[in-house]
Amino acid sequence: MPLKPNIYAIIMAGGMGTRFWPLSRRRRPKQVLAINGPNSMLQDTVSRLDGLIPLERTYVVSNAQQMRIIAPQLPEMDEANFILEPVPRNTAACIGLAAIHVRRIDPGGIMVVLPADHLIKNITTFQNIVRTGINVVEKHDALVTIGIPPTRPETAYGYIQFEEPGDDLPDGVYRVKTFAEKPTTETARLFLDSGDFFWNSGIFIWRASKILAELDDCLPELYAQLQKIEEALEKDEYPGVLSNYYKRIRPISIDYGVMEITNSPIYMLTGDFGWSDVGSWDELFRISVKGQDDSVHIGETVAIDAQHNYIYSPGKLTAVLGMDNILVVNTPSATLICPLDRAQDVKEIVEKLQKEKRTRYL
Amino acid sequence: MPLKPNIYAIIMAGGMGTRFWPLSRRRRPKQVLAINGPNSMLQDTVSRLDGLIPLERTYVVSNAQQMRIIAPQLPEMDEANFILEPVPRNTAACIGLAAIHVRRIDPGGIMVVLPADHLIKNITTFQNIVRTGINVVEKHDALVTIGIPPTRPETAYGYIQFEEPGDDLPDGVYRVKTFAEKPTTETARLFLDSGDFFWNSGIFIWRASKILAELDDCLPELYAQLQKIEEALEKDEYPGVLSNYYKRIRPISIDYGVMEITNSPIYMLTGDFGWSDVGSWDELFRISVKGQDDSVHIGETVAIDAQHNYIYSPGKLTAVLGMDNILVVNTPSATLICPLDRAQDVKEIVEKLQKEKRTRYL
Repeated sequence: MPLKPNIYAIIMAGGMGTRFWPLSRRRRPKQVLAINGPNSMLQDTVSRLDGLIPLERTYVVSNAQQMRIIAPQLPEMDEANFILEPVPRNTAACIGLAAIHVRRIDPGGIMVVLPADHLIKNITTFQNIVRTGINVVEKHDALVTIGIPPTRPETAYGYIQFEEPGDDLPDGVYRVKTFAEKPTTETARLFLDSGDFFWNSGIFIWRASKILAELDDCLPELYAQLQKIEEALEKDEYPGVLSNYYKRIRPISIDYGVMEITNSPIYMLTGDFGWSDVGSWDELFRISVKGQDDSVHIGETVAIDAQHNYIYSPGKLTAVLGMDNILVVNTPSATLICPLDRAQDVKEIVEKLQKEKRTRYL
Repeated sequence: MPLKPNIYAIIMAGGMGTRFWPLSRRRRPKQVLAINGPNSMLQDTVSRLDGLIPLERTYVVSNAQQMRIIAPQLPEMDEANFILEPVPRNTAACIGLAAIHVRRIDPGGIMVVLPADHLIKNITTFQNIVRTGINVVEKHDALVTIGIPPTRPETAYGYIQFEEPGDDLPDGVYRVKTFAEKPTTETARLFLDSGDFFWNSGIFIWRASKILAELDDCLPELYAQLQKIEEALEKDEYPGVLSNYYKRIRPISIDYGVMEITNSPIYMLTGDFGWSDVGSWDELFRISVKGQDDSVHIGETVAIDAQHNYIYSPGKLTAVLGMDNILVVNTPSATLICPLDRAQDVKEIVEKLQKEKRTRYL
C-alpha cells in the first residue's frame, strides 16, 4: 500500500566513487554503474521504492556535472524531480537543499533520505522498516536513522551506539546514544563485541521542517545560506542565487554536522535487509555469489590454476593463469590488477594519475 | 664483403608461436611480432643478413595461411623468393623443400638455414661466424650447425655435445659428438656442468645437395616425396603436386630426423653473438633492459608497490598495485595475467580456448 501523500524520497546521487576505478570515472560515478546486476545502483535505489513512494514524490539530488549521466538512467522521472547542486558540498548541504524544496511543496512533508549507491537485498523488509520509521517520525517528530547489524569489525563505516529499547517503541526501534566516526580496527572490534553498536547506513527519515530546525541549531551558517536559496525558489533568479550561496557552503557531512552533536532524540531502526554500501571492489566480491574456483567472473574469461579471484571483463577476454586472490578490472581504456585485499587502495592509483595529469584515465 | 653468389639464406618462418599469446595468434605468429624493438623478428632476421647475403638470394619458407601477414612485412622481397608450404610439416620437410629449390637454381648452392624468430644482438659476430661456417662447408662438404654457449640449465632447448677441437679446424669450430633432445632439469644441469654441451640454435649451414643426400639416407620416405615435388618444379602442375605430396609428409624435425642419427660428420660453430630464441614471455623479460622497479613497462602503465613485472600494454592503460613478478599482456581483444615463472604455460590457456572452441581468441 503506498504511503500517505506527504512522504518524499530524497535520493542522494552526487558521489564520485573513485574506489571503483577504472570502471568508475569522474563522469561515471559508482551510482550509475551496474556492478551488481543488470541495473545501475541508482536505478535499483529508485525501483526499490516501488509501491512505497511514487516516482512523482521521488527526488534525486546530484550535481550539474553528473546530470548528463544520471538523467538518462531515469527516463520516466520528471525534470522537476532532479534537484541540482551547482557543486558538491557533502551531505549536510545536500539534505538541506532537498529539505527546503520539500518544505516549499509540503510544509509537513516527511523525507526518506537514501544514498543512491547502496545495495539492499530484501526489498520487502526494507519497505516495512521505512514504514515503521515514518510511523516513528509521525508520532515523535524525531530524527530517525537506520542502523545495520554489524557482521565484522569494519573500519570503513561509521557506527551508531543505541540504548536498550523502552516499552514505548516498536520492535527493532532503539533510541540512539551516540554517532561514532569510522573507528580504528581495535575500536571497531570493541564496538562489535559490545553488541550495542550498529553500522551507520546513511539512511534517514525525518520531517523537512525538523531537519531544517536542526541545521539552524547545529549549522547556523549553512542554514542561513539555505534560507537565502529558499527565498529564491520558483523565481527567475534562483539559479544565480543557488550558485552564489551554494559555492560558499562549507562542506560537512550530516553525521558530523548534526547527528553527532544534536541534543534532539534520535531513533534507530534495525536494518536487517541485506545491506551493503558496496564501497570497494573487495566488498563487491564479498557480497557476490561465487562461481567455480570460488571466483567471480564477469564477461569473457578463461582461468587455469586460479582461485578466489574477481575478474570483471565485459567485451574482451581476460585470461588468468596461476593467480589467486586478485582483482582484475578490464575496461576498454584501462585495466586494473591488484590483490583483492589491496582493492581499497585503488584510490592511490587515481591520485597518482591525477598528480601526473593523465586526465583521460580519470 | 658479400659472399660468393652460391650462398642462399633460407629463413624458416612457418612457426605458430602460441607461447606469446595473446599477442601471437594463429594469424599473427611470433616471427611477425615486434616484441623486441621497432621491427618484427622476421624483419630483423632478413636485415641481419645485410652485406652478407643479398635479398635476391634470400628465401622465406612459410605456409600459405601466414603469407598474408609475412609478405607485407618484406615489401622489397620478390614474390619468387617466398617458398610456400601448403601445410606446416616441421623442419625436416621445410628444409627439404627449400633444398630442392636451391638445388634447382644452383646445384652447388650452399644454404644458410635461419629460424625467423630468434634474437641476435651482435650482428658483426654473427656474420663472421656464418662466413666461417661457409668456409667449413666449402672445405669439408659437411653439415654445420651453430651452438650457443649455455648460461643456465635451460630445459626448453635442445643441446649439442661437442668434442675437443682438432688442429685442422678454425678457432671456435668443433666436431659434434651428439645432438640431445630437450633435457630434464637434472640432465640440463649435468650438461651445463660438463662444459661440452652447447644449446642447439637451429641455425644450419650446408650444401643443398648434402642435406638432400642426408634426407635420402635418414628419411627416405620424405626424400621420395620431395623428389616428386622437385620433378614438378617450374611446371604448371607444381601447386597440385606440392599440395598432394606435402600433405602426406610425416612431420619430423631436422634434429630428430637427421642430426641425431646421421653418420656424417657435423661441425659446430660457437655462436657467441648474444642469441636468444625468445621462446616465451619470461625469456623476453629476461633479455629486456629493466627500468624502474626492476620492471619492463611497454605502453601506458601506472604502478604502485610493484616490482619485477613485465607489463605490455600499448594503446591502453594498465594499472598494477601491490603485484610482484607478474606478466601482463594487454591487447585490444584479450588480456593475460600470470606469474612470470608460469609464462611458459600460456599454451595451456591456448589449448583450453581451442578445446572450448573460442576461436576468435586464437
